Amino acid sequence: MALVNEHFLKLPGSYLFSDIAKKINTFKITHPQKEIIRLGIGDVTRPLPPACIEAMHKAVEELAAASTFHGYGPEQGYDFLREAIIKKDYATRGITLAVNEVFVNDGAKSDTGNIGDILRHDNSVGVTDPIYPVYIDSNVMSGRSGVLDPNTGKWSNITYMPCTSENNFIPEIPKKRIDIVYLCYPNNPTGTTLTKAELKKWVDYALANDTLILFDAAYEAYIQEPDVPHSIYEIKGAKRCAIEFRSFSKTAGFTGVRCGYTVVPKELTAATLTGERVSLNALWNRRQCTKFNGASYITQRAAEAIYSPEGQQQIQETIDYYMTNARIMREGLEEAGLEVYGGVNAPYIWVKTPNNTPSWRFFEQMLYEANVVGTPGVGFGPSGEGYIRLTAFGERANCIEAMQRIKNWL
Amino acid sequence: MALVNEHFLKLPGSYLFSDIAKKINTFKITHPQKEIIRLGIGDVTRPLPPACIEAMHKAVEELAAASTFHGYGPEQGYDFLREAIIKKDYATRGITLAVNEVFVNDGAKSDTGNIGDILRHDNSVGVTDPIYPVYIDSNVMSGRSGVLDPNTGKWSNITYMPCTSENNFIPEIPKKRIDIVYLCYPNNPTGTTLTKAELKKWVDYALANDTLILFDAAYEAYIQEPDVPHSIYEIKGAKRCAIEFRSFSKTAGFTGVRCGYTVVPKELTAATLTGERVSLNALWNRRQCTKFNGASYITQRAAEAIYSPEGQQQIQETIDYYMTNARIMREGLEEAGLEVYGGVNAPYIWVKTPNNTPSWRFFEQMLYEANVVGTPGVGFGPSGEGYIRLTAFGERANCIEAMQRIKNWL
Repeated sequence: MALVNEHFLKLPGSYLFSDIAKKINTFKITHPQKEIIRLGIGDVTRPLPPACIEAMHKAVEELAAASTFHGYGPEQGYDFLREAIIKKDYATRGITLAVNEVFVNDGAKSDTGNIGDILRHDNSVGVTDPIYPVYIDSNVMSGRSGVLDPNTGKWSNITYMPCTSENNFIPEIPKKRIDIVYLCYPNNPTGTTLTKAELKKWVDYALANDTLILFDAAYEAYIQEPDVPHSIYEIKGAKRCAIEFRSFSKTAGFTGVRCGYTVVPKELTAATLTGERVSLNALWNRRQCTKFNGASYITQRAAEAIYSPEGQQQIQETIDYYMTNARIMREGLEEAGLEVYGGVNAPYIWVKTPNNTPSWRFFEQMLYEANVVGTPGVGFGPSGEGYIRLTAFGERANCIEAMQRIKNWL
Repeated sequence: MALVNEHFLKLPGSYLFSDIAKKINTFKITHPQKEIIRLGIGDVTRPLPPACIEAMHKAVEELAAASTFHGYGPEQGYDFLREAIIKKDYATRGITLAVNEVFVNDGAKSDTGNIGDILRHDNSVGVTDPIYPVYIDSNVMSGRSGVLDPNTGKWSNITYMPCTSENNFIPEIPKKRIDIVYLCYPNNPTGTTLTKAELKKWVDYALANDTLILFDAAYEAYIQEPDVPHSIYEIKGAKRCAIEFRSFSKTAGFTGVRCGYTVVPKELTAATLTGERVSLNALWNRRQCTKFNGASYITQRAAEAIYSPEGQQQIQETIDYYMTNARIMREGLEEAGLEVYGGVNAPYIWVKTPNNTPSWRFFEQMLYEANVVGTPGVGFGPSGEGYIRLTAFGERANCIEAMQRIKNWL
């Protein structure tokens, strides 16, 4: 009798974004004449950089002729892309990586979800709270989470490290030892960052406790301030305790093109039950060779083009566009009397609801009164209660109009 | 202390294809003047169909303008592609599927590897032998395989169903109950097929024993004979016991473009320990929503173009090209006095080595004497010993020349 993985059955039946979609649909049916502005979902709206478009047309043409055709590529990605990544994203910050420490993928969601394959099912897990739901859901699926307490919204085997305005969104270093800790900086959903000194505390904790840090740097391209680390490997010792995930989705508008990469340093090890040290680079390589067949050749050529001088300038223009949106939104929300976080080194704005209004209630009020859609903070975890997330990825005119509506409403 | 998934450590250290590459390198160094013909690796060589090239250029242009830009697509794939798949691959054979029973992916390797995520770690597994190594390796990683017996090359918790010339490559229905059975038809590596009557026996077995069949039909486009099922759902009852994997890699030259799809019928269930039935469609959907973010928009538009009248004609021409290669190779090998299987409904030719020569020994002899590269059959499992696999994906002239060399050699 084929048996299912029963851990899946612990997952709550509905998704945050489908719940939101349902509420929007109800509103639309009852208010067909109202025009909604969506600042909820974190998807980009600007077109791809011309350098990427050109590279993709060229790559498509290569596949049109037998003499230039490319079939199976390396599971780990083409060297032309891995070398560009190392040279431009790491060497420029004084970080040395070998080509086989970089694994190109079809987006950071795949790798942040699949990385658990190479780790034991009973490692303890720590997360900052609020958090990107994939980290928790993928651990629920593999049996690491324990059971959900419906009252607190917390899983029994997961340690939550609250990030709220009370602690300035800086997670407290745990008193106890945790095997695996997820950190995402610049943070989704709060838009906040850690300084080098703050991140160093985590690396020191990890080295002292033999903790593996899974560091999601998907939004590093949005960093504007000097003291914010772009890579965890800027911190000494991090290669011995951290895997880093990067994505082209928000850096270059690749949400529909699908490409990112994961760095697994060769000095990084984890233990067997008998205390033997095992290279995680070797395990991840084996995992990818068995369950992945590389990213599209066309996509990888597009990603390579991001690193050309033209590509670099073009992505900067788009990032500036979104970050100007973020500034306009921050200012508008503050003028409306709201407490606002993030939006300085990240495309996410994290808004405290007035008078401790619950997230979902404020979401509905803003939808019905201002016809603006955000994402209820509690959807990202218990410590997100009393907040709402807005994203800066929309059209400029919509951002301006949304702020006007919110000011008129509040 | 972060602990590794120790099941990974059970996997043998080297890969079949890297072992082959090493042997070829040694030969090249010692025989620099010899020109090798590679008929070993199953990668295609013909360019993409013009219909796909055109569709990709168009899709790339869409991503170049904000008004036609596409960001995140559905994790399950775009409806335009899912509907084309259902209409052309299934409705034409009298099989009815709903759009949400089809999951578009970045290639069949990902899904055949990841499908185990939704199944318990202690299901028993059965495989035909020889077999595509991903089925076994992915089960080793998740702890289902038990331990490897280095003498037999078999894993203790996996049931092997030999497919050799002795049983005409028809796997015997097991006497005992197995929870999960992998079937790949047309078969990689043997190139053989099952008739509808033979496949029906497996569906009947699965229904009687509550077995889940994982049916890999990646090579169905190569079927030439009428009584060979293209889909397991041509057999009554199969929707209640089988998941089907399809790929555009060999159908349309997508090995470097990365696209395929998986069918998980809504009537398909598996059990919890307490006997409750759970929809595998719902679990797989949840898995994909958490750990996958859809295939590239450009890739999906290319896949859609395969189903246009031009696309259908163009892929047929390429398939005919490869199958003519297969015929030339079959005839050549038979003329050389070899026993040959496959190559009629599949691009793979499975050759019995003369005088029971071991696979690796024959591989080396053919490399050194005829300068032709195949894949040792034993690399696909114990029952592959005494065989070698050749593929028909090469250039015509190379296939003809390789046959001439083998005839001169033997």
